[in-house]
Amino acid sequence: MTASVRSFFAPRSVAVIGASRRPGSIGRAILDNLVAAEFCGPIYPVNPDAAEIAGLRSYPSVAAIGAPVDLAIVVVPAHAVEAVIRECAAATVRAAVVITSGFAETGPAGRDAEQRLRDIARAAGMRLIGPNCMGVLSTDPAVRLNATFSPVFPPAGNVSMVTQSGALGLAMLDHARELELGIADFASIGNKADVSGNDLLMYWRDDPRTRVIAMYLESFGNPRRFVRLAPEVARTRPIVAVKSGRSAAGTRAASSHSAALASLDVGVDALFAQAGVIRTDTLEQMFDVVALLASQPVPAGPRIGVVTNAGGPGILLADACEAHGLVLPRLAESTLAALRALLPPHAGLSNPIDMTASAPAEHFAAALELVGRDPNVDAVVAIYIPPLVTDPDDIAAAIARGAAALPTNVPVATVFMSSRGTPEVLSRGPRGRIPSYSFPENAALALAAAVRHGAWLRRPAGAARVLSPPRAEEIRARVRGWSERNPDGGWVGLDDAVAILGAAGLRVAPHRSVPAEPAAAAAAADELGYPVVLKAVGPALLHKTDAGGVALGLADAAAVRAAAGAMRVRLGAAGLALTGFVVQRQIAAGVEALVGVTSDPSLGPLVVAGIGGVAVELYKDVAFRLTPVTDIDAVEMLDQLRGRAVLDGFRGAPAADRGALVEVILAISALADAVPELAELDLNPVIVHAPGGGATVVDARMRLRGSASPRVA
Amino acid sequence: MTASVRSFFAPRSVAVIGASRRPGSIGRAILDNLVAAEFCGPIYPVNPDAAEIAGLRSYPSVAAIGAPVDLAIVVVPAHAVEAVIRECAAATVRAAVVITSGFAETGPAGRDAEQRLRDIARAAGMRLIGPNCMGVLSTDPAVRLNATFSPVFPPAGNVSMVTQSGALGLAMLDHARELELGIADFASIGNKADVSGNDLLMYWRDDPRTRVIAMYLESFGNPRRFVRLAPEVARTRPIVAVKSGRSAAGTRAASSHSAALASLDVGVDALFAQAGVIRTDTLEQMFDVVALLASQPVPAGPRIGVVTNAGGPGILLADACEAHGLVLPRLAESTLAALRALLPPHAGLSNPIDMTASAPAEHFAAALELVGRDPNVDAVVAIYIPPLVTDPDDIAAAIARGAAALPTNVPVATVFMSSRGTPEVLSRGPRGRIPSYSFPENAALALAAAVRHGAWLRRPAGAARVLSPPRAEEIRARVRGWSERNPDGGWVGLDDAVAILGAAGLRVAPHRSVPAEPAAAAAAADELGYPVVLKAVGPALLHKTDAGGVALGLADAAAVRAAAGAMRVRLGAAGLALTGFVVQRQIAAGVEALVGVTSDPSLGPLVVAGIGGVAVELYKDVAFRLTPVTDIDAVEMLDQLRGRAVLDGFRGAPAADRGALVEVILAISALADAVPELAELDLNPVIVHAPGGGATVVDARMRLRGSASPRVA
Repeated sequence: MTASVRSFFAPRSVAVIGASRRPGSIGRAILDNLVAAEFCGPIYPVNPDAAEIAGLRSYPSVAAIGAPVDLAIVVVPAHAVEAVIRECAAATVRAAVVITSGFAETGPAGRDAEQRLRDIARAAGMRLIGPNCMGVLSTDPAVRLNATFSPVFPPAGNVSMVTQSGALGLAMLDHARELELGIADFASIGNKADVSGNDLLMYWRDDPRTRVIAMYLESFGNPRRFVRLAPEVARTRPIVAVKSGRSAAGTRAASSHSAALASLDVGVDALFAQAGVIRTDTLEQMFDVVALLASQPVPAGPRIGVVTNAGGPGILLADACEAHGLVLPRLAESTLAALRALLPPHAGLSNPIDMTASAPAEHFAAALELVGRDPNVDAVVAIYIPPLVTDPDDIAAAIARGAAALPTNVPVATVFMSSRGTPEVLSRGPRGRIPSYSFPENAALALAAAVRHGAWLRRPAGAARVLSPPRAEEIRARVRGWSERNPDGGWVGLDDAVAILGAAGLRVAPHRSVPAEPAAAAAAADELGYPVVLKAVGPALLHKTDAGGVALGLADAAAVRAAAGAMRVRLGAAGLALTGFVVQRQIAAGVEALVGVTSDPSLGPLVVAGIGGVAVELYKDVAFRLTPVTDIDAVEMLDQLRGRAVLDGFRGAPAADRGALVEVILAISALADAVPELAELDLNPVIVHAPGGGATVVDARMRLRGSASPRVA
Repeated sequence: MTASVRSFFAPRSVAVIGASRRPGSIGRAILDNLVAAEFCGPIYPVNPDAAEIAGLRSYPSVAAIGAPVDLAIVVVPAHAVEAVIRECAAATVRAAVVITSGFAETGPAGRDAEQRLRDIARAAGMRLIGPNCMGVLSTDPAVRLNATFSPVFPPAGNVSMVTQSGALGLAMLDHARELELGIADFASIGNKADVSGNDLLMYWRDDPRTRVIAMYLESFGNPRRFVRLAPEVARTRPIVAVKSGRSAAGTRAASSHSAALASLDVGVDALFAQAGVIRTDTLEQMFDVVALLASQPVPAGPRIGVVTNAGGPGILLADACEAHGLVLPRLAESTLAALRALLPPHAGLSNPIDMTASAPAEHFAAALELVGRDPNVDAVVAIYIPPLVTDPDDIAAAIARGAAALPTNVPVATVFMSSRGTPEVLSRGPRGRIPSYSFPENAALALAAAVRHGAWLRRPAGAARVLSPPRAEEIRARVRGWSERNPDGGWVGLDDAVAILGAAGLRVAPHRSVPAEPAAAAAAADELGYPVVLKAVGPALLHKTDAGGVALGLADAAAVRAAAGAMRVRLGAAGLALTGFVVQRQIAAGVEALVGVTSDPSLGPLVVAGIGGVAVELYKDVAFRLTPVTDIDAVEMLDQLRGRAVLDGFRGAPAADRGALVEVILAISALADAVPELAELDLNPVIVHAPGGGATVVDARMRLRGSASPRVA
């Protein structure tokens, strides 16, 4: 698999099918780019109407080349692509990039045509990138491949990039060159008929030239494979990604653009967090983070030391660091003493270290080393605004000296606030490239992303629960039975739902379902024991509290009869059908939580957890994870809730059994993976008792997909 | 006042006191800059040791010049500044800029020296900028003043800038030139010994060359004056500001840097919101917003139309627009029909309008005009990523044509994703300058800020409440009485607090304060009527619920006696002193709200409001405003709470009397302004009853400052 992808980035020969003589055409631009980048192998233009293009001998067809072709770049009109791919397959071309657009993005006919391209390629063992893309590129000096129509060949380096948008690919290469950010491989993958982002991740995982991977995505082909694969890759090659379509408007734009299934953005966030992928909101931020990770070690922690020759940008950096969860610690006494001896008396020593405008180069070098070696500091930032009295080149050289004197596990970043950019000498020291930002906030954001990545790297693996075979079979049997009775799917009755939840290992409040008769409700309450809760059941009563369909704390049979009678009258008056009652043993108070499952059309089941009844809905204070959720994930879900203090006994209220709530989350994850029909599950509330007391499900809504409905991939 | 500031930006003559022959010195750089910018008046170097500097005749002192000096730039060592300022005053210099540092920022002695400079200047009617700054600048062609040591003289334009940090001033001028953003006036005001940001706002309010004002601030000198002045200015000259020191770390850095009082960042946010000032998080964002407002009208609403030649950046823009509260509407049928007739069949018409990569210039012009004229659209963005097949110059010219055809009240912005920047022809059409951004997100942020500013401009003025003289006098008398008994200030007892709140027009739940005896509590309850709430009183019982010091719903005297006895035992066991009980009539349920006052050392009293008991503390869901709070402010405070749905009857609960809660906020604002001693007030909870039912204060804590404590400025 990995070997087959190699032909895109290290081909020994390239054919350009649809090479053109016409200047300004894409077929001509790709040929010119291949030549200009000095590709280290033969280039074969293919064009039936030309004997020679741009000084190269041209061939009427791939077959006519008469020599092995590793990579074919296809730039013929859409209607001619299928025949060309057949010819490539017949000529044992190893890999083809279809630049041409007009396939799945145009509608069903295009989707069928694209499917045929994939079938032809796969039958022949040929890999395919595209269609509807802008090509591939490698800066490897042994290859020097620019098989794109980008006017830019970026500097060589250790960042490999993949983009789902060709246009943004052009912008990314352009921006990389502007930032002097070195690229290893680049691929625009367009409609992803065959080769996907996942395939490239696998390839770059073992690529010695790639240190960091950058991705621009609009959709996931196989998100479940991504979530298994990305963590393996991210252990050694940080992955920084922009996934657009975060908003409703963006999703609409993305799906009309690429005809791909939209994903819930909370699901995408969960996926990236679980997979150890660094998600940024913007391409600019992606570049900021990549520039740091391409040259600096991952920081050991969030404590940032700052040296600056100006107070203002130091304050801006401090603000941005704290906003992103970083810390500006007080420096150790020994560091402060050394800085006091070094710097003039009016220098500010409360990190940021403000050396004042006149700070000479030697102060930058010495202070950077002192702060970077401080035991309280995990990473160091040097800020420089060129005043009149010092020379940017001298300062940059001094920072490079100071950085070289630091242990190699301490990252260094700089902020040079000048449109003239950063002197090259900054990156010429023994420490190599040192990232430089134009504004303090960009440095803070990049460091914060790197710190979070470090925390992810240090995080234990965790384990998910799996249902025992007999319990899984019990659940499957009950789901089968229900599905036979309800082939179109729908809401599962409480009795079935409770049985399924019980088999999954959850404690559910004891209940009885009875007809819509006050006497029947009272009899059931007598069996359960008091106090009880009475709930109305009916097709329009999903949110029972809203409709006045719940009565709490009924202490005896008379109270149950009265409440049931009143409820019948009330709902009748509101025109709401009442088909029965549920009588439930009332559960002692505790912290209210919500645990549920929602099913994303592209990502599959997501487990959701939240605390605090109304807060869940009012403040949307919930956490999502893809199944399988591990114990580490579940603990992190609770930690990420803003209202988590409630679990620890907020404002004198008793604490809650956190461990029991974690077990509920794990059991629900196992259930979701055992029941692919599960479309929606909502345990709300789950009452979490005092520590050691466990958790009890008090209300549950469960919806199963019908056998006719589409399953999740 | 305004006239006196004019001498800084339109002087007829300039003296540089401390002008130097030494290249690289600040005294030399300022002289060179004045000459290089071709200042339209005489330049007088002053230096006792030189007869001529840089070809100009030099004078031993200001007095020796023998001609009127409008503006003196002072660059002498700190110890010599006072004598120079005296000389300037004697020579009737109109305005002086003290570049020299070493004053208030260095400690008490420096503060005293700075105070003396101000006194000398004010006694002579001379205005003073600085000390510790980097100068002033005007691009007015009739002036051409560069009295800074910045290596950059920015292009002329309509943006006036003020910075509290000289170093960031250098960076701002540099960035303005890089963006080709035109500047009118610029001032670095350093320690603000005399001229403040407020003075400059007043000056620029009437300056015909200034259209937009940009500010970088680290502290406020007179925030109360700012909040009165800024709205007047912002009606005609939008103000865009960065105020650093948002975080604890940043505040620490800012106060060690400028020795100014730190403000609560929530207070700063409130101040800017009330004053109509557009606050941005970063300098980069400040420039993005300024670039839009400097050339485009304020949008009439949040509906953005987008035309693009690439899907990816369109999705990124849609995401960013929605994240910032903007809307991408569906276009009108007539617009869609016209676009369908114009564009190829595979173009995407669900705003963003994706014209695809090959879109020619005439499509850009026509689509921009169609979308900009759509009745559903308030502003339009054109995105362009240069593909091979079109020329950026042609596209830019076409956008300029399309923009010129639009009504002038429709703002136009562009995103040119290319490191080669935006062709100049974009801004050469009859519509003038059109702002261009490198990334879609920057355009979205700028438009969102402009849309919020438009909403502020359309917002009615509102009115604050003022206490009637008899009520104010009643309150003042009680505060005086309390303060005489408590000269050091402290927590006010419930009886006094309730009387003060009652006089301020608030309804407070009836109560009795009694000794710590169960029998006394029961007798008080009998008087009040049942049910009652019993609360423990003691020095360590500020958070009564936490300590088990509150019993609710006591229905008769026996219950009160039992609860009081149990409370006495429980608090005794916990070692908490009990000095008495408060018995209070229990108030019928309603929505719980919090209204309070907190006093900021720099900004003065801030009114705070929140809803929902625990949510206030757990989710920090509160809104702040400076006093006086108007009725419009109060309504906006409630609208800005994330949990505001609770007021409308969330999930079947009854709605609440919003108007009554607004009145509580207004009454508290009036109270805070009538009682300068008020350090802290916390009405929590205020029970807000059903509409028409009003609101009742159930618990109140009030702290007054002692007569010895410092008052707010």
